[in-house]
Amino acid sequence: MGEFELIEKFFKPKAPAAQAGRVRLGVGDDCALLAPAPGMELAVSSDMLVEGRHFFADVDPAALGHKALAVNLSDLAAMGAAPLAFTLALALPPQRAGDAGWLAAFAAGLHALADAHGCPLVGGDTTAGPLNICITIFGEVPAGQALRRSGARAGDDVWASGTLGDARLALQALRGQQTLPPAALAAARRRLEWPTPRLALGQALRGIATSCIDVSDGLAGDLGHVLNASGVGATLEVEAVAGLMAFPQAAEQRLHHALHGGDDYELAFTAPPSAREAVQRAAQAAATPVTRLGRIDAEPGLRLAQPGGARTPIAARGFDHFADGCC
Amino acid sequence: MGEFELIEKFFKPKAPAAQAGRVRLGVGDDCALLAPAPGMELAVSSDMLVEGRHFFADVDPAALGHKALAVNLSDLAAMGAAPLAFTLALALPPQRAGDAGWLAAFAAGLHALADAHGCPLVGGDTTAGPLNICITIFGEVPAGQALRRSGARAGDDVWASGTLGDARLALQALRGQQTLPPAALAAARRRLEWPTPRLALGQALRGIATSCIDVSDGLAGDLGHVLNASGVGATLEVEAVAGLMAFPQAAEQRLHHALHGGDDYELAFTAPPSAREAVQRAAQAAATPVTRLGRIDAEPGLRLAQPGGARTPIAARGFDHFADGCC
Repeated sequence: MGEFELIEKFFKPKAPAAQAGRVRLGVGDDCALLAPAPGMELAVSSDMLVEGRHFFADVDPAALGHKALAVNLSDLAAMGAAPLAFTLALALPPQRAGDAGWLAAFAAGLHALADAHGCPLVGGDTTAGPLNICITIFGEVPAGQALRRSGARAGDDVWASGTLGDARLALQALRGQQTLPPAALAAARRRLEWPTPRLALGQALRGIATSCIDVSDGLAGDLGHVLNASGVGATLEVEAVAGLMAFPQAAEQRLHHALHGGDDYELAFTAPPSAREAVQRAAQAAATPVTRLGRIDAEPGLRLAQPGGARTPIAARGFDHFADGCC
Repeated sequence: MGEFELIEKFFKPKAPAAQAGRVRLGVGDDCALLAPAPGMELAVSSDMLVEGRHFFADVDPAALGHKALAVNLSDLAAMGAAPLAFTLALALPPQRAGDAGWLAAFAAGLHALADAHGCPLVGGDTTAGPLNICITIFGEVPAGQALRRSGARAGDDVWASGTLGDARLALQALRGQQTLPPAALAAARRRLEWPTPRLALGQALRGIATSCIDVSDGLAGDLGHVLNASGVGATLEVEAVAGLMAFPQAAEQRLHHALHGGDDYELAFTAPPSAREAVQRAAQAAATPVTRLGRIDAEPGLRLAQPGGARTPIAARGFDHFADGCC
């Protein structure tokens, strides 16, 4: 199958785009044309997924298509932006380019999530090469209302959505470093392979959260970016953090996975204590549970408060795609 | 060097962005934020360059940085759009990630072209993996004025900018399939490795050209996309096409390279005969020579007219990144 046939068959949306008013021109020209609504800023993010680094070679291709878009949607969620459209650049080795079943499943996983969020594919590129998936996503956010990393202030609460560390648990099990009961493995693996971008929560937090980031490289590392950008520090309650995991594990492992696990695609955000009720209402409206983990301090650095009150520093190091990898 | 250190060192612009008014937020958050001017549409394009397919492993890294952005700027040129910003996703094998000289040269080549067009880097991704460069570019074009592929009409002239086939000649020489005098090789190689995106010409052709495309995969293939999108055909004059090459070659090879060479990054466009003077004025204003190659016909297909008047069909097949490659 040649480049243009492949695009035509798998990556050219057949139905009119849900965002037709804002997508003036989609796949098939030198550029796509987008027209954000008046008063809106365009939020833009790019993520690149590499075989053997971000995913196993034998991963379910539908899950891969889903996840490739989900990690980008998660970046929009973290800005409080609503999805608009995306481009896909895809390098395929010969055995993938010739595998119509694999391509169809990949495209199905991708388009299902895109359709669920009214976020059509508007362009991109395909080429031969080692398997590499690069998606750039476009979203809209009312001018001045994006949730940035730089707005956390001393005294703010630190919050996280959902649960953290499950994806890392699945990774350990898939690597053969840990044994899990079949049901727990299936559930944890679903968190690793089919992450849910928290778009509704991100948008509901506009005007409430003072800062926000998506947890892709581990809470400690990602919250560290917020602290650095905001010029503040934070103290997290050990029991709140260890309680974030969905699956039973030894307490120490739970804490480590929640802080340093990566691949969670939950939101970590800050808001003043006066906004606690507003945060809970936003979470309820978005049908996404949130947990208060601690608070922002003027003193730089990230600390863990033990139940007795003792404080221990947490290394802010998160997942580094040069040092670490899935496989 | 870790992921974040590498971004900080090479890919975080130190100076305020030239487009500061429209780039509300650049590198360093979950998304960049762009605010196109009122009445503008946003033109978006993604290109992925793979080592061993789009460039040789030993290519000058400064040229590679230049070309990675140039091919994207060329897509903006083909729409008549003005550059606004770009994202860079980069997969680097260990020997590149650890080679500060290579990275600095790559970044210098990239930023020099970006600065020349006031088009700052606003975000992206870096990861370990086989060398892969994916740039997504954003440009602005007044609403409704983008140069699309679908507007060619029977009777229009067919034009091309600059010269075609030079890059292919360099490729043949670098592959050892052809010997060139040193000066000719250096000049042809410059066309292959340091292409010039025709941005000024694209913008000058707004309201004049009825269709436009950039010639990246060979004139025959790319003009074929225009013909398909417009539901028309074309007849090109063999002498005009063969005259497009800058370097002396056998007539048959000249014709083949001009039609099927690829990597030219010139513009092919159509305009009614009544606009010939306007086209020449636009070319002059953009300091970019243009040549009239033939005309659009109602009859589908692409034909070559011989000096005697005989017509021969041209296969519309261009460069296919699954079937073909540089190396």
